[in-house]
Amino acid sequence: MALTGQSFLGSQRGAHTGALLFATNPQSGEKLGPGYASVSAAEAEQAVELAGQAAPLYSALSGKERAAFLRRIADAIDAIVQPLTERAHLETALPIARLQGETARTTGQLRLFATLLEDGSWLDARIDTALPDRKPLPRPALRSMLRPIGPVVVFGASNFPLAFSAAGGDTAAALAAGCPVIVKAHSAHPGTSELVAEVIQSAVAECGLPEGVFSLVYGSGSEIGALLVKHPVVQAVAFTGSLRAGRILMDMAASRPQPIPCFTEMSGENPLFILPGAMRKAPETLAQNLFNSFTMGSGQFCTRPGIIFWSQQAEAPAFLAKLKELVTQSSPYPLLTPGIAREYQKGTETRDRQATLLAEAPAAATAPACAALSHLYSVTLEEFQAQPQLSEEIFGPTTLLVECKSPDDYAAAARTLNGQLTATVFGDDEDLAAQKQLIAVLETKAGRVIFNAFPTGVEVSHAMVHGGPYPATSDARFTSVGTQSIYRFARPVCFQGFPSSLLPAELQDANPLGILRLVDGKETRDRLA
Amino acid sequence: MALTGQSFLGSQRGAHTGALLFATNPQSGEKLGPGYASVSAAEAEQAVELAGQAAPLYSALSGKERAAFLRRIADAIDAIVQPLTERAHLETALPIARLQGETARTTGQLRLFATLLEDGSWLDARIDTALPDRKPLPRPALRSMLRPIGPVVVFGASNFPLAFSAAGGDTAAALAAGCPVIVKAHSAHPGTSELVAEVIQSAVAECGLPEGVFSLVYGSGSEIGALLVKHPVVQAVAFTGSLRAGRILMDMAASRPQPIPCFTEMSGENPLFILPGAMRKAPETLAQNLFNSFTMGSGQFCTRPGIIFWSQQAEAPAFLAKLKELVTQSSPYPLLTPGIAREYQKGTETRDRQATLLAEAPAAATAPACAALSHLYSVTLEEFQAQPQLSEEIFGPTTLLVECKSPDDYAAAARTLNGQLTATVFGDDEDLAAQKQLIAVLETKAGRVIFNAFPTGVEVSHAMVHGGPYPATSDARFTSVGTQSIYRFARPVCFQGFPSSLLPAELQDANPLGILRLVDGKETRDRLA
Repeated sequence: MALTGQSFLGSQRGAHTGALLFATNPQSGEKLGPGYASVSAAEAEQAVELAGQAAPLYSALSGKERAAFLRRIADAIDAIVQPLTERAHLETALPIARLQGETARTTGQLRLFATLLEDGSWLDARIDTALPDRKPLPRPALRSMLRPIGPVVVFGASNFPLAFSAAGGDTAAALAAGCPVIVKAHSAHPGTSELVAEVIQSAVAECGLPEGVFSLVYGSGSEIGALLVKHPVVQAVAFTGSLRAGRILMDMAASRPQPIPCFTEMSGENPLFILPGAMRKAPETLAQNLFNSFTMGSGQFCTRPGIIFWSQQAEAPAFLAKLKELVTQSSPYPLLTPGIAREYQKGTETRDRQATLLAEAPAAATAPACAALSHLYSVTLEEFQAQPQLSEEIFGPTTLLVECKSPDDYAAAARTLNGQLTATVFGDDEDLAAQKQLIAVLETKAGRVIFNAFPTGVEVSHAMVHGGPYPATSDARFTSVGTQSIYRFARPVCFQGFPSSLLPAELQDANPLGILRLVDGKETRDRLA
Repeated sequence: MALTGQSFLGSQRGAHTGALLFATNPQSGEKLGPGYASVSAAEAEQAVELAGQAAPLYSALSGKERAAFLRRIADAIDAIVQPLTERAHLETALPIARLQGETARTTGQLRLFATLLEDGSWLDARIDTALPDRKPLPRPALRSMLRPIGPVVVFGASNFPLAFSAAGGDTAAALAAGCPVIVKAHSAHPGTSELVAEVIQSAVAECGLPEGVFSLVYGSGSEIGALLVKHPVVQAVAFTGSLRAGRILMDMAASRPQPIPCFTEMSGENPLFILPGAMRKAPETLAQNLFNSFTMGSGQFCTRPGIIFWSQQAEAPAFLAKLKELVTQSSPYPLLTPGIAREYQKGTETRDRQATLLAEAPAAATAPACAALSHLYSVTLEEFQAQPQLSEEIFGPTTLLVECKSPDDYAAAARTLNGQLTATVFGDDEDLAAQKQLIAVLETKAGRVIFNAFPTGVEVSHAMVHGGPYPATSDARFTSVGTQSIYRFARPVCFQGFPSSLLPAELQDANPLGILRLVDGKETRDRLA
């Protein structure tokens, strides 16, 4: 598994003639070899054309066949967990243990999608039986199910080099839905991406699938990404990253001659509201856990709690003192890239002028090359509402405390927030019952509303919603984590008047796959009577 | 129920000071009173603000409460079917019997949504139970369900003054989802819209709902529509109409500071493929039924078959002769508006230069003011493929025959088509089995694939898909007809760690509503163990 620095155009490897990009070791600041060659426009087009050729074949596979493919990828990733996490650690400075956990999450989500495909009920098969004698007009037999949307372009994210990258959630969901995938590799971890892509292409070959089911291309700058998003064969886009880049992609997808769905998971400040019962119970533990949450992964989680609403009460000083202590005693955190470190530096310098700096970690003699010092800021609710810039995300180990006069101010404050991935409330059951209005507002602002737990840590499951109103994502109707994320890449197709034998198995009278179907409005796994 | 010519801003009526718009009687060409006053920008904003105020209250209603509201609207529309269809007939020249059927469809779809809400399973409730002992990390309790997206702007369509207008499918789906609605009334049938809006506002009052749940505004030109789509309170748009207008709305919605979902159902040529078995069986009946389909409603159906692929065989001349005869013997058809009549005239004049005119209806001494003469065109497959303009919709009683060398050409021809609402194949079972490739292509091109029936006539049911890839609609993942159309206006929200008693009833342990839920990946109506 020597790294080559070349893209994957289906089963073929890209030429090694384009401008080279190198990962940086965030700890040492050193360049990491090999250099990764940007694909040419012709190579990027080749990857897309291969995806277009693969689409009809891949979409015709049964759920079980696609499940076997996903399981093979998962097994093969598990088999290289040691070299994979070592390389990822060099490229991201994320701890090995975290990267092992992330690998397990990555293979776990591939297997969860496999389970979904093996059952097949996710396809939302619906049958309205014919009513030939209905007056004034007969009803024809109508049968619908979800079908893949077509080739999908996935942009790898910097902060989860495995779970939101080459074989991450977007790729897994698109492949599960029956869509070929072209990954635009993130430049921060090209080696990690190559190792994973190699495993996926091996699985493509071993399963006898058309090579265009998966490609992964490297490209510095934005040209290659733009070419992919604008290519007429591409039918959807998935992206995790900044609001700025995400909005550019949204606008690009919307202004194509044929606009296409573009699911971008972007910024967010993940507001957190502290109610009296929670502060009363254990102010210092609350502070410790909050600190852990906003510095987890060096504060580079899209669910990092970045705005904390609190109000004065007897225990508040202990909470604040503990938070200040933790920040002041913290060591520099390694960030993912020099660019992210520069942005954090700039972001905190700006915030120094907008808010009160309550505490700051000291500089250290031996710090990572891409280092961030934790910062703790504070404003009053009035100051917060007067400065919309305070709602802009700073990516890194910092948070902003917003002092309210009383919890009675929370609902009104929540109403002025932007769309969010998460919103969190800490309190006791009594607090919660008294804050029904706050919950009602938060539900309109976030994809996930949390009681008494921190938002960092996103479960991959059936009920997870990792989405939310803009600018958290491009479209609040979808999630990018969990089994529901497959719906981003599927569209319903209705077959009218077809003989049962010529329909997909999911829609045949006998229900040979035994899936759950909606027959004349009633859900059942039975065959048609 | 005297008509007043005023908009509905919640329960209040608009001023009567704006520029007046009048419907035209398409038969006589006469202006129909009263004049309808365009709302001012301030009035349009008032309607939106009322919708924003109503949203939290209306979204908090139970499904049964919303169902009662929808049933009340349906009953009240049924009660005015005679004056309603009489006015609609004056404004559209559509036959009374058709308008009575359309009224039944309109109330039927309101009641179908009511049934959906009464059951409640459409909300896709999901529960992942807590796993406190899971290693390495416990799993929190996660529960998700669909919630309303927020206020929706609905643009009434010209061609279905009831079923796709003030209380049409878009309004019914949005109200069912829990979203307040602001209708921009279509200028072609303002009186019909007023009668329906009056009924809806009465139902709002009788059900004790906040007045902003429903507004209906008149406006000439595009300013009022643009104001509504751009208003920050508005969270989604639904539109049925032309590609040109639909694309403008899509671009407007996508370029807002907060982009919002914009579901536009636009043009389409609804390709139809004739296989040998069908032509052999009854060529003249096929011609008669095809003629009926493309002239139904004066050819003003979005599912009118506009491109007919056929190939030479012994029975083809009889088919063609019959079609020509029917067109030549047809009388002028009344179109909906002077503008649509002008567009039809222009469209056929252009097509006269692009294709062979096989037959044309004769002009008549006594024709409707807004009249269209049926036209039948013909090209070869080569000519069709050389002229992309031939795929552009002409709205009215015309169709285009495309002569292929053999049915073997159909799959390749289908591959070059734009996105469509429907695609139809006529043949016997043997033909169909031999054309699996054609069906596979059509499935990627259309939301509904039909065997041996005409596409005109869209059933309102669970399995219907009235959608399809652009330019048929803005987003192939949704339908605008049938119960699935509700998903355009709902978004999933996940509640993590909440005590059962403080959750919506749909997510409580005891499952008090008895709805179908996905619990740890298994569907069940049981309470939590």
